[in-house]
Amino acid sequence: MRRQAFECSKALIVSKLSRYEFERFRQPSLSAAQLEKELRRRGSDYELLLHHHHVHKSCEAAVDAALKARNVQTRVVNRLTLKEGSVEWADGVFTAGGDGTFLLAASRVPDNRTPVIGFNSDPTRSEGFLCLPSHFSRNISEAVERLFAGHFHWTFRTRVRITLVGSDVFQPPIELHDQQLLHPEFRFFDCLQEQLPSAKSDKRSDEQKRVLPVLALNEVFMGERLSARVSYHEVRLNGGARVKVKSSGVCVSTGTGSTSWAHSIGRLSSDGAHELLRALLAERPDLDLDLDDQNLLQNVTNRYNNALVFGPEESRLTYVIRDMISGGVWPSPRGVISPRGFAHHLEVKSRCGDAALVVDGGVSFDFNDGTVALLELHPDDALRTVTLAPP
Amino acid sequence: MRRQAFECSKALIVSKLSRYEFERFRQPSLSAAQLEKELRRRGSDYELLLHHHHVHKSCEAAVDAALKARNVQTRVVNRLTLKEGSVEWADGVFTAGGDGTFLLAASRVPDNRTPVIGFNSDPTRSEGFLCLPSHFSRNISEAVERLFAGHFHWTFRTRVRITLVGSDVFQPPIELHDQQLLHPEFRFFDCLQEQLPSAKSDKRSDEQKRVLPVLALNEVFMGERLSARVSYHEVRLNGGARVKVKSSGVCVSTGTGSTSWAHSIGRLSSDGAHELLRALLAERPDLDLDLDDQNLLQNVTNRYNNALVFGPEESRLTYVIRDMISGGVWPSPRGVISPRGFAHHLEVKSRCGDAALVVDGGVSFDFNDGTVALLELHPDDALRTVTLAPP
Repeated sequence: MRRQAFECSKALIVSKLSRYEFERFRQPSLSAAQLEKELRRRGSDYELLLHHHHVHKSCEAAVDAALKARNVQTRVVNRLTLKEGSVEWADGVFTAGGDGTFLLAASRVPDNRTPVIGFNSDPTRSEGFLCLPSHFSRNISEAVERLFAGHFHWTFRTRVRITLVGSDVFQPPIELHDQQLLHPEFRFFDCLQEQLPSAKSDKRSDEQKRVLPVLALNEVFMGERLSARVSYHEVRLNGGARVKVKSSGVCVSTGTGSTSWAHSIGRLSSDGAHELLRALLAERPDLDLDLDDQNLLQNVTNRYNNALVFGPEESRLTYVIRDMISGGVWPSPRGVISPRGFAHHLEVKSRCGDAALVVDGGVSFDFNDGTVALLELHPDDALRTVTLAPP
Repeated sequence: MRRQAFECSKALIVSKLSRYEFERFRQPSLSAAQLEKELRRRGSDYELLLHHHHVHKSCEAAVDAALKARNVQTRVVNRLTLKEGSVEWADGVFTAGGDGTFLLAASRVPDNRTPVIGFNSDPTRSEGFLCLPSHFSRNISEAVERLFAGHFHWTFRTRVRITLVGSDVFQPPIELHDQQLLHPEFRFFDCLQEQLPSAKSDKRSDEQKRVLPVLALNEVFMGERLSARVSYHEVRLNGGARVKVKSSGVCVSTGTGSTSWAHSIGRLSSDGAHELLRALLAERPDLDLDLDDQNLLQNVTNRYNNALVFGPEESRLTYVIRDMISGGVWPSPRGVISPRGFAHHLEVKSRCGDAALVVDGGVSFDFNDGTVALLELHPDDALRTVTLAPP
């Protein structure tokens, strides 16, 4: 299964849409001069915007040139021009942009055969965890040489296969978003609390099953579309008991994603660690603990936060129930769940009113009352990419 | 200022919209029998739904009867029939429902004169922190008697005054939501990172100032409307330095709200505390600390979580920068901010594309690129309510 050498005769280059291009796309009726005027009126630094546009474009051109120099046929697309079938045509996918562009490209690769390789087009602005080290942003042809010479390692990043089970699971994914929201915008819409599952069977006669056409490389987020609204779910870890949770959404992440959103949710600041140690000292004044020891505080905090991260090739998932609301009558005390933990597979049932399941912060699917999402890991679903150490 | 006795001749009763009423409202073309069939088809427990509807309605009727028995003129409204001017007519506001209904009613009271008193209409389902103790849900006329006999204490709950400064701040609040979203639904829409503030003046010629017509009793949430999207803000605490933050939204809470959303965001689980103490022990193996001491773990966790809570009459705010994304090139290292803390006043500038400022999870205002929100506390803005101890 694992190819020893890098073979690529047709490369798809997925390029970031720059802010400048985005503004042009948003306001197609404006001339370049009119757009400049409008952007300046809105307080944007037009020169800076154009500068970053050019930095990005020159990276895109360098990737294209380096591949063509190896007799590789290329096609360049961006978020707006990437079409169904674009990836199928290629036997290698390259990205020029940041992690968002890498995720976009990866989301279109349905198996572990076609590799995705990312160039960070503007490493001064963003780190690009998924892209090659920034050394190769300045040495693009060197990276391409090394790939074709076989001086690299394959990395198979674990991805999540998502199966939706419910009566309304074949709706198309939503990308360009012009949706109507169903309910008034209330965080606690009192009456939605009455949306409890029936004591009787939950099974509907018109239930269908659908494996989603995208695999999650970073994470799957399930929650109400509106950020200020409370989400209701039933979560089942590794086939265990179903537990009702009330939260701001459930985030299920791979090792790749464990440095990303799941990490931002789960991490503790050193101020937080300080507070907890202060609470410990109040309970145990006998402990020989200096709360002003900044070094200790930082080390403890780092240890805690690093423990949230795991390897991209590991076959497990981490979940976080964001802003979990505990106590109260709902959920019933039948089951308890930690707001964070690991699992090999999860089942999440939506009890939401106007919610989505969002894959890698990019593509979203309706995920409303009664629909179940099964989240599983399969080796065939991994993303093939490369590890290339800078010299 | 503080009235010694309870004087009320005209009472507005704000009553929860039950799930049953909500479903009828949503599907007005269906007959009662057709609605029953539809709800059963969707897997709802129709009997339970109707049961809770009746429980709620009998509370509403009891509040109305107890007030009428004291010769108080009453008007009963719900979320859908509450109109501008409804509150101005009354010299006392009563709610029958949960905290959501209390917040709704309180949001319409513009000063510290008209009291708001909440009855939890279904205490078996939700706790109702803002309502009277559940004893009075079963003894409504007793509560009303005690109020009119002066056997209570006034409580003045601190609220947040919000002033928006920007070029487009006079848009109406959005309640019944049928909004079009502006951007594609991407968590990291690469090019939006280029939405950096200009190095030049940020001031626009068409800048206006608007004090919002609602005061926040629980919290003010500022962030992208879509829950899966990253929010960009500049936060300034107590007139200090402006710090750029990238997060899932900023939540600024009163003492009243410190047990609510801000608490769910900030609290640590005992599993989390366990992990941190484990990290401590790894750094300091000499400490005499038993990680299996469940009692200690629970006490430390409780202390930590209780420190997030403060009194509803205190004149300060707590803020939480949710899922704060740290590291990376953006934000610039010019300023650092703890993801959580206290402040007396805050200034938050939006760098978002399609974002809202949401008051008490109920009313939302557009809060996009360049608009500034000033969050302040003034004694005149407090909410007058009562403390009534159960016998």
